[in-house]
Amino acid sequence: MVNGIERPLDLLNQSKGKEILVQLKNNQQLVGTLIAFDIHINIVLSNTKELDNGEVKRNIGMTFIRGDTIIYISPSQASA
Amino acid sequence: MVNGIERPLDLLNQSKGKEILVQLKNNQQLVGTLIAFDIHINIVLSNTKELDNGEVKRNIGMTFIRGDTIIYISPSQASA
Amino acid sequence: MVNGIERPLDLLNQSKGKEILVQLKNNQQLVGTLIAFDIHINIVLSNTKELDNGEVKRNIGMTFIRGDTIIYISPSQASA
Amino acid sequence: MVNGIERPLDLLNQSKGKEILVQLKNNQQLVGTLIAFDIHINIVLSNTKELDNGEVKRNIGMTFIRGDTIIYISPSQASA
Amino acid sequence: MVNGIERPLDLLNQSKGKEILVQLKNNQQLVGTLIAFDIHINIVLSNTKELDNGEVKRNIGMTFIRGDTIIYISPSQASA
Amino acid sequence: MVNGIERPLDLLNQSKGKEILVQLKNNQQLVGTLIAFDIHINIVLSNTKELDNGEVKRNIGMTFIRGDTIIYISPSQASA
Amino acid sequence: MVNGIERPLDLLNQSKGKEILVQLKNNQQLVGTLIAFDIHINIVLSNTKELDNGEVKRNIGMTFIRGDTIIYISPSQASA
Repeated sequence: MVNGIERPLDLLNQSKGKEILVQLKNNQQLVGTLIAFDIHINIVLSNTKELDNGEVKRNIGMTFIRGDTIIYISPSQASA
Repeated sequence: MVNGIERPLDLLNQSKGKEILVQLKNNQQLVGTLIAFDIHINIVLSNTKELDNGEVKRNIGMTFIRGDTIIYISPSQASA
Repeated sequence: MVNGIERPLDLLNQSKGKEILVQLKNNQQLVGTLIAFDIHINIVLSNTKELDNGEVKRNIGMTFIRGDTIIYISPSQASA
Repeated sequence: MVNGIERPLDLLNQSKGKEILVQLKNNQQLVGTLIAFDIHINIVLSNTKELDNGEVKRNIGMTFIRGDTIIYISPSQASA
Repeated sequence: MVNGIERPLDLLNQSKGKEILVQLKNNQQLVGTLIAFDIHINIVLSNTKELDNGEVKRNIGMTFIRGDTIIYISPSQASA
Repeated sequence: MVNGIERPLDLLNQSKGKEILVQLKNNQQLVGTLIAFDIHINIVLSNTKELDNGEVKRNIGMTFIRGDTIIYISPSQASA
Repeated sequence: MVNGIERPLDLLNQSKGKEILVQLKNNQQLVGTLIAFDIHINIVLSNTKELDNGEVKRNIGMTFIRGDTIIYISPSQASA
């Protein structure tokens, strides 16, 4: 076990309240503060921003994201 | 827990009766008032409008949207 | 609850016997009278018409449509 | 209930032994006599013909079609 | 019931030991002798041949084919 | 029953320890020695080689392959 | 049984704490140290790097990857 992460969802649990980067299957990237998630990896972000080549394109606020549209979630990259 | 949102569906529950933006996998965007949803994220909107680059293209009224076609749902963006 | 719609399928239930617009994932649009549906959103329409840019292309009569090919269903738009 | 159709599969049940048109997701159309189907909408047609723009391209005889490749099934159109 | 086919899988059961044509979702066609199948329509063919426009491209021998890649299976066409 | 193959997975069971060809949905081909598989057709190959038009492109060693990315598996073709 | 691998997930279990290469369906490649995985093949990598033609494009740190976006996982290739 590294950093208290035994199962994949443990990383999401540790990331609640922190900024995360969400890479979508349609190549879009969203950044926001992780508020909630479930076992389908449906997630809610607050203060969500759409990125275009790493630059903020627009702010879409509190957002529900369907899990089956997500490729990866990176908590550390969001604050990079 | 932020704003009473513990699970992702709590955001949808709070958004009933309010305008939401629905981003579909086929790149279409729909805006309408959230009337109902279920665990598959099937939703019903009233006064639904199709958007084209943020502009209203046409009004398709009361509409049933299949959950597996949705990327994200943004309650705050709809009124932006 | 708005207009007696508590769950998404309630809208389909109210639309039985009425004309509905069905937007398919392959960009096709079908219009017909809703005869039956099930929890997979498989539906049967009578007097089904294929639309091309809002104009009737051909009439394919009584038709079974597989639920997983549907993006949205709009009862009000069909009669617009 | 219209024409004895209460659930979507009732239309398929009524169509056994009759010619039906099957629209596939890959844009192909097949016409044949419906012999059998199951709840996955897997179907068997006899005397199956591949159509190209409404014209018969070739006859592939008795054929098993996987349900998840089907968009719609139209009993009335086959004899049009 | 036609030719003893009551359910779709009955056609596959009757085709064991016979040549069948398998149309794949990636537009490839395989022909071979049906050895085994299961309820997912996973199948095993012996003496499998890849077809290109109806001509044999190469022989890939005994082959396991995943059911979710199949569009249709035609026993009669293989010997045409 | 041919060659002791009653169900599709029997072919994979017989192929343990032998070279197999794996055709992926993204058109890639992998060749390697079958070490293990499960009912999802997830498989592990040792000494895995990526093929490009039948020629070895690179060796990626011991590899886990997700079942839902596989079109077909051919034990006999690998040694052709 | 080879190298103690009886089931496919045994390879992932043996790879915990080691660098692995993850080939995604969108053609992206990620390299990182395997921290955790589950039966859906959801995985967590630490020190994750995006590769472009085998060269490191950027470091995205600790990352959750959704299992259904993965084609294959190669523990040996990561250190090649």
